[in-house]
Amino acid sequence: MRIIGIDPGYAIMGYGILDYNGNRFKTVHYGSIETKAGVPMPERLKLLYDGLTEIIQEYKPDEASIEELFFNRNVTTAIGVGEARGIALLACVEGGLSVSEYTPMQIKQALVGYGKAEKKQVQTMVKTILNLKEVPKPDDTADAVAAAICHAHSRNSRVIGR
Amino acid sequence: MRIIGIDPGYAIMGYGILDYNGNRFKTVHYGSIETKAGVPMPERLKLLYDGLTEIIQEYKPDEASIEELFFNRNVTTAIGVGEARGIALLACVEGGLSVSEYTPMQIKQALVGYGKAEKKQVQTMVKTILNLKEVPKPDDTADAVAAAICHAHSRNSRVIGR
Repeated sequence: MRIIGIDPGYAIMGYGILDYNGNRFKTVHYGSIETKAGVPMPERLKLLYDGLTEIIQEYKPDEASIEELFFNRNVTTAIGVGEARGIALLACVEGGLSVSEYTPMQIKQALVGYGKAEKKQVQTMVKTILNLKEVPKPDDTADAVAAAICHAHSRNSRVIGR
Repeated sequence: MRIIGIDPGYAIMGYGILDYNGNRFKTVHYGSIETKAGVPMPERLKLLYDGLTEIIQEYKPDEASIEELFFNRNVTTAIGVGEARGIALLACVEGGLSVSEYTPMQIKQALVGYGKAEKKQVQTMVKTILNLKEVPKPDDTADAVAAAICHAHSRNSRVIGR
């Protein structure tokens, strides 16, 4: 099964694509789509949509995993990130992917075994689980890969739980 | 010039299409695209995107006007509305439209002449300006039409202001 994890944002949209078969991961590709401040939001959204659609068409993932968003303070930022997230969800549906959503706590729990783990601990686990030489950069890419790993583990535990 | 006004939401996306030439309005079409609670968000976003794209292809507006979102309280709702708004912006850009954004205060100012006007006053002005028999329903549709009128007036005042 091929999973794409996505960390949605309008300045940086991180993604990570993994194959997961028989409890084993194979890292296929990861990176980020970035848009510049000063470019009008509608155009930024189109760049993100086109970029993500291209990635999906090229790597043909079966399922998508995306973090649920939580904001405590800046609602204006929340709207912008919501807009980027809407674009990401649309690109996944248009690409025929099923989409699963996970809270930051679920992702931390899945990777570190502790829902309040630090970002650094999550990143270290991403590197270890995938046997990478370095933590994927930027943070948004590492977060996207973490979401993909969480989805794989979560599917697994659902199967075990039957 | 043909303008589409959009009031973005994931349950109800209101729209209104007006022709504006020589200071005169002609009402072309207005309505709403609605999605049901219980349908997963990615599918709701696709329904909204496809619906709005169809409207744009059928009526071929030149420019789009969309309200800027402000939220004081419910950030979770803000994310969902942001997602729907992102979809609306993408549909406009994909349709080749320029997109202008107006704050609720600018829209009230443009229609009623008072930035803190009540919703009811705005709706009455929509009905009067377009010489309609009734206020467009639901409220989201009336708000979308108001955004279109605001954009027409705003363009006009920019021209006068040269």
